[in-house]
Amino acid sequence: MTNRIIFLSILCCIGTSLRAQENVLSYVKPITGTQRMGHTYPGPTVPFGAVQLSPETDTLSYEMNGKYNKDVYKYCAGYQYEDKTIVGFSHTHFSGTGHSDLGDFLIMPTTGALQLNPGTADHPESGYRSRFSHSTEVAEPAYYKVKLEDDNILAELTASNRVGFHQYTFPASDQSHIVLDLMSGIYNYPNKNVWTFVRVENDTLITGYRQTSGWARTRTVYFAMTFSKPFKEYGHRNYTSDVYKGFYRKFDQTKNFPEMAGRQIRAYFDFNTTEGEKIKIKFAISPVSTAGALKNLQTEIPGWDFDQVKREGQALWTKELNKIQIASNSREEKENFYTAMYHAFVNPTTYMDVDGQYRGLDQNNYTANGYTNYTTFSLWDTYRALHPLFNVVQPGRNADMVQSMLHHYEQSVQHMLPVWSHYANENWCMIGYHSVSVIADAIMKGNAPFDVNKALEACVTTARHRTYDGLGYYMDMGYVPEDKNGSSVSKTLEYAYDDWCIAQVAKKLGRTDLYDEFIKRAANYKNVYDKASGFMRPRLSDGTFKAAFDPLQTHDQGFIEGNAWNYSLYVPHNPDDMIAMMGGKKQFTQHLDSLFTMHLPDKYFAETEDITRDGIIGNYVHGNEPSHHVAYLYNWTGYPWKTQERVRMILKKMYHPGPDGLGGNDDCGQMSAWYIFSSLGFYPVCPGSDQYALGSPAVDKATLQLENGKTFVIDVKNQGDKNVYVQKVLLNGKPLNRLYITHSDIMEGGNMTFYMSSKPNK
Amino acid sequence: MTNRIIFLSILCCIGTSLRAQENVLSYVKPITGTQRMGHTYPGPTVPFGAVQLSPETDTLSYEMNGKYNKDVYKYCAGYQYEDKTIVGFSHTHFSGTGHSDLGDFLIMPTTGALQLNPGTADHPESGYRSRFSHSTEVAEPAYYKVKLEDDNILAELTASNRVGFHQYTFPASDQSHIVLDLMSGIYNYPNKNVWTFVRVENDTLITGYRQTSGWARTRTVYFAMTFSKPFKEYGHRNYTSDVYKGFYRKFDQTKNFPEMAGRQIRAYFDFNTTEGEKIKIKFAISPVSTAGALKNLQTEIPGWDFDQVKREGQALWTKELNKIQIASNSREEKENFYTAMYHAFVNPTTYMDVDGQYRGLDQNNYTANGYTNYTTFSLWDTYRALHPLFNVVQPGRNADMVQSMLHHYEQSVQHMLPVWSHYANENWCMIGYHSVSVIADAIMKGNAPFDVNKALEACVTTARHRTYDGLGYYMDMGYVPEDKNGSSVSKTLEYAYDDWCIAQVAKKLGRTDLYDEFIKRAANYKNVYDKASGFMRPRLSDGTFKAAFDPLQTHDQGFIEGNAWNYSLYVPHNPDDMIAMMGGKKQFTQHLDSLFTMHLPDKYFAETEDITRDGIIGNYVHGNEPSHHVAYLYNWTGYPWKTQERVRMILKKMYHPGPDGLGGNDDCGQMSAWYIFSSLGFYPVCPGSDQYALGSPAVDKATLQLENGKTFVIDVKNQGDKNVYVQKVLLNGKPLNRLYITHSDIMEGGNMTFYMSSKPNK
Repeated sequence: MTNRIIFLSILCCIGTSLRAQENVLSYVKPITGTQRMGHTYPGPTVPFGAVQLSPETDTLSYEMNGKYNKDVYKYCAGYQYEDKTIVGFSHTHFSGTGHSDLGDFLIMPTTGALQLNPGTADHPESGYRSRFSHSTEVAEPAYYKVKLEDDNILAELTASNRVGFHQYTFPASDQSHIVLDLMSGIYNYPNKNVWTFVRVENDTLITGYRQTSGWARTRTVYFAMTFSKPFKEYGHRNYTSDVYKGFYRKFDQTKNFPEMAGRQIRAYFDFNTTEGEKIKIKFAISPVSTAGALKNLQTEIPGWDFDQVKREGQALWTKELNKIQIASNSREEKENFYTAMYHAFVNPTTYMDVDGQYRGLDQNNYTANGYTNYTTFSLWDTYRALHPLFNVVQPGRNADMVQSMLHHYEQSVQHMLPVWSHYANENWCMIGYHSVSVIADAIMKGNAPFDVNKALEACVTTARHRTYDGLGYYMDMGYVPEDKNGSSVSKTLEYAYDDWCIAQVAKKLGRTDLYDEFIKRAANYKNVYDKASGFMRPRLSDGTFKAAFDPLQTHDQGFIEGNAWNYSLYVPHNPDDMIAMMGGKKQFTQHLDSLFTMHLPDKYFAETEDITRDGIIGNYVHGNEPSHHVAYLYNWTGYPWKTQERVRMILKKMYHPGPDGLGGNDDCGQMSAWYIFSSLGFYPVCPGSDQYALGSPAVDKATLQLENGKTFVIDVKNQGDKNVYVQKVLLNGKPLNRLYITHSDIMEGGNMTFYMSSKPNK
Repeated sequence: MTNRIIFLSILCCIGTSLRAQENVLSYVKPITGTQRMGHTYPGPTVPFGAVQLSPETDTLSYEMNGKYNKDVYKYCAGYQYEDKTIVGFSHTHFSGTGHSDLGDFLIMPTTGALQLNPGTADHPESGYRSRFSHSTEVAEPAYYKVKLEDDNILAELTASNRVGFHQYTFPASDQSHIVLDLMSGIYNYPNKNVWTFVRVENDTLITGYRQTSGWARTRTVYFAMTFSKPFKEYGHRNYTSDVYKGFYRKFDQTKNFPEMAGRQIRAYFDFNTTEGEKIKIKFAISPVSTAGALKNLQTEIPGWDFDQVKREGQALWTKELNKIQIASNSREEKENFYTAMYHAFVNPTTYMDVDGQYRGLDQNNYTANGYTNYTTFSLWDTYRALHPLFNVVQPGRNADMVQSMLHHYEQSVQHMLPVWSHYANENWCMIGYHSVSVIADAIMKGNAPFDVNKALEACVTTARHRTYDGLGYYMDMGYVPEDKNGSSVSKTLEYAYDDWCIAQVAKKLGRTDLYDEFIKRAANYKNVYDKASGFMRPRLSDGTFKAAFDPLQTHDQGFIEGNAWNYSLYVPHNPDDMIAMMGGKKQFTQHLDSLFTMHLPDKYFAETEDITRDGIIGNYVHGNEPSHHVAYLYNWTGYPWKTQERVRMILKKMYHPGPDGLGGNDDCGQMSAWYIFSSLGFYPVCPGSDQYALGSPAVDKATLQLENGKTFVIDVKNQGDKNVYVQKVLLNGKPLNRLYITHSDIMEGGNMTFYMSSKPNK
């Protein structure tokens, strides 16, 4: 109860202090990115919440006839805006990923004859799914509403951190049902469900778990679920027959038998409902146990007041979103900005019970002492701008995220920091070891309330793991040879950047031995530069460059999620040297110009991953991450106005406040973090340094409410759609004679004034 | 370390105090019952130990081509004496059960080219299994030795409570291997393995778990395994391909990759060995986590002294076995007796870590506070004599077993006490709710250091569970109708007895309301007595007796593991009334005489479960339990000398100290407990009462060392194979003028003298 009281007190304070503030919630459009490639979800979650309760418009199998089913990709977040039916509402979703998992515990309310199969989109009446229309759909932070047309049920959802709250308004029926489908899931495989277990504890409380093997190989999520009204009957079907049943014949298990277990289970609960009667469900999850889930449920939402829980969730959002208050005369800008803030603050997600217990990578249970444990680290994406953003406006949470990563390291049998981790699993997605960038960025920016020497040890051990992804070759030869390990250039470049990050920390901590080792490795980008072609280019183990080479091609050319045109520009820790190496400022500027203006032939576009046609400007691919810093590189070639121009173009072209508003996967907030930084007028080209390259702000004004109590105000004079060029910048009233600001410039509080013009300041 | 010191101190004391005592260990023959139907195992365990480390001579699948494979039944304990090969050594085994599970974590040492499949008994060279001979086999309490002939490896095993200790003496080889087969198991099904998970923590430590769905539907056992010497290489094979592998391509997983997970895994560890080099393995298990297993390992066996661990294990056995010290001039009697003591003291098994943590029935983890948590409750068997035996010589442990059962009740979603439970699961095997007998026996005998009112509540709730196994009909109609629920007569009779037990407790606790309810139910045996046939007989829901009825037939006649001839005598709580009902003492005596002397036609024998021809005397089936009290019923008919004669005949005929020494399944010690009581001269015909019916002692003398510090001495004058008849009995020097002694007669200490003769005292 103590926790609860503290929690309510906090909410109370939030409520009071925000009363005067603008309702930023109205600018957030959770529906943004739900069409095509954005892979966001529209349902409710609280900031960094463990529960993401959202509708599934389809749940396809990852495999069809033993082969990859391409259509499944659309459903990484379970929802596609163009779909006409809703299958149900499940409790866990990734935001913006390009591969998937989760979709745990699908709930669907129905009436009439019981149907336990989902049915098809073409014939929703063949199963429990229902038609719906966007006209009845409302998606706000911490609130979602839709009419399920087939059964005339109004569905409303909200959530606390670990509890999803459903409110279904039924018609009169003596055949009302709640289906709990434990077979349903995102990116399902025929054998993805490893085990499911359900107990009907009494006539309103259900507990259980779902254990899966998918993107996370060994993953279990526990739950506790309670109804606002006792069901009259219940039952389940087990769709596999491969479990020994000999001694379960003591009971009739087909109905009202309180223990269900097996690989493929769907359960149902029957009610009589009067016209307009609401049946509410609180559904808590836990990484540890059903006891933990029940504790979460009782602590976070003891009562049944749906509107109060919605208000509390929205108050949490209001607090987080107000960490950056912007002024703009463009509603679209505000919607873009706050929707980006919203999407930036959903991942990583809380991964522990209210009492701090969580499951570790070794499948043992741990207690997080003195920090919040997080999961869902899409680090190849988020090290670039999301974690740097957190170091500015979420430093406490970012430090806890680093702690979570360090505990991951301690629990890792490979003795490695996370690469792409979720739910007590390392899924090894993408490349590099960008945890070290996040750690270095936190340490170098002074946001390191953790054991920095231990953190350095973790970085070094990770970076010396010879059997990981070509790293042994890289350590021996200075590059990853393409004939030994694919995507070799991307890996070489990213390892080199990560190594630079380690070197910075080593230097700061006085470990010159490690500094020498890693600063040397940081120069390895030179080893994959092919002067003849002018590109970074795959090199073989005999030292020669690979002969066949198409710098426009993304696949099998030594890169991943990027072609040589884009990826060759990836030396964030030493742009000056890169530019010199690639022919000097003039030639490099031409390369950048061409990148943004050339026409990418269709055959190449078709091969580009994770983005729509809208996600490309020329051959610049904003929908993928490797080029996210590229527009800012003009600052190093003497053409900052071109940076300003390009940034504003990208802001305008790649982001809209509609379902189709994201040109590519949001990637757990990285795309959104790019938007936030860039619209404020600066961007962390090289996380691990304390500098932010200046761009062109798109807001009229922004006030950063910092956790240290200070504020940093960005004032933009003469702002306008055409006034994209910066004439001059004042920092605390004094002219800023550099093309960057530092982290301390921000964190010490103060103000920065941009003077804008429609003409470039050449 | 503190735990360890205390543990060693205790052992030290034991060692000193026992030096003067006879070496009882030499009389224990763990090999007894390993041939045919005994279903015991020869490998080492300590008293009530969590680990039962024993050789598997075969591991068949429970299913063949989708059907039950009859041959699997032989391998309930993994070992059949007539087999010529050993597959390996696994860590968990039931003792004497008639259905099975377990066989977790099979270890096999080999040399030469690596073989990861077990091979066949006919062609052991086709896999990792090896030929062996009984001539090299030694099976003692806490010690097992055998030569694995194919690879010339000497295998030695010992164990502490939670740790199996292997010692393998290798020949010289640069291809020595230890195979860890996670696919192997007893009563395997094609999909019995739900999940397995292994981490190679360093070059000597492995952790992981095996999750299965078999007799226990949702069961996981965790382990930590350490080698005395670092392996040079390791690897595994995953025999299923149904797990998504996309992002595991970052490493070469075929060799030296430290994380293995999947449904079907075999791992191996490679060594160079010199001639005679010993590789030792300590293998700890835990019901909770790998962290728990590691703690168990480090606490129980911190060092590598195999002989010391063996000595410690044998000291524990010496202590337990000496709780009853017998004198006999027959070595066979001593071997029978102490082998029975050994088999009586292996189940139930410890089910918690050294820190008290265990997994509950709801799959949550709990800590056992102030008691030892046990599992493996074969209650339909063991309520009869094993738990009553524990109330005499293991009262502390028996009270803890009751506590374990009460916690099971608290965790049970059915709100029921255990029926047949193992490893956090209820398998619902057999019939009745005999937990109530065990609880009543403990309470009525004053061995109840637990909340007796709560215990009564648990008994009552269990006995009122209407949807359990015909119980609703029984409650409404006074009997289970055969047309509604099979084995109806057995159920009716056993429910009635259990209800009598509840009534006794209710009376003792002053709950007359409950006494009235259950004493009425206790008379329900009357409702299935058919006066016309003179047998208990299945009755239909219309009130009539089932027409087709063969009282010699075991199957489909309303009984289970017994025919009407045997089962009709099952009213242990009211023999006098039963005898009167069945025609009076004379007629009843004739029934008993016929039972023991008639010839059971072969067609009936073939249908009798779980026993060999040796397990039958006439039509009396000692190999199954329902008749275990029957020989003592002559005491109620005026023919106690016939009880004496029959008991001695059964002792002689049904027990031998050889591999084929048990006429039927030992059933977790029930057969052995019958032997112990009967050879001491008394037997608990009706657990829940405080009386033991007198029989005919087979020992010359017995001293019961009671936990309360007192001793009870049984002195038998003129003992001999032909002197089976009791002439008179003195209790503490005074003539005993009754055919029973009471529990307090024993527990208050004292002596009882039997005077034997070759002639019946009619």
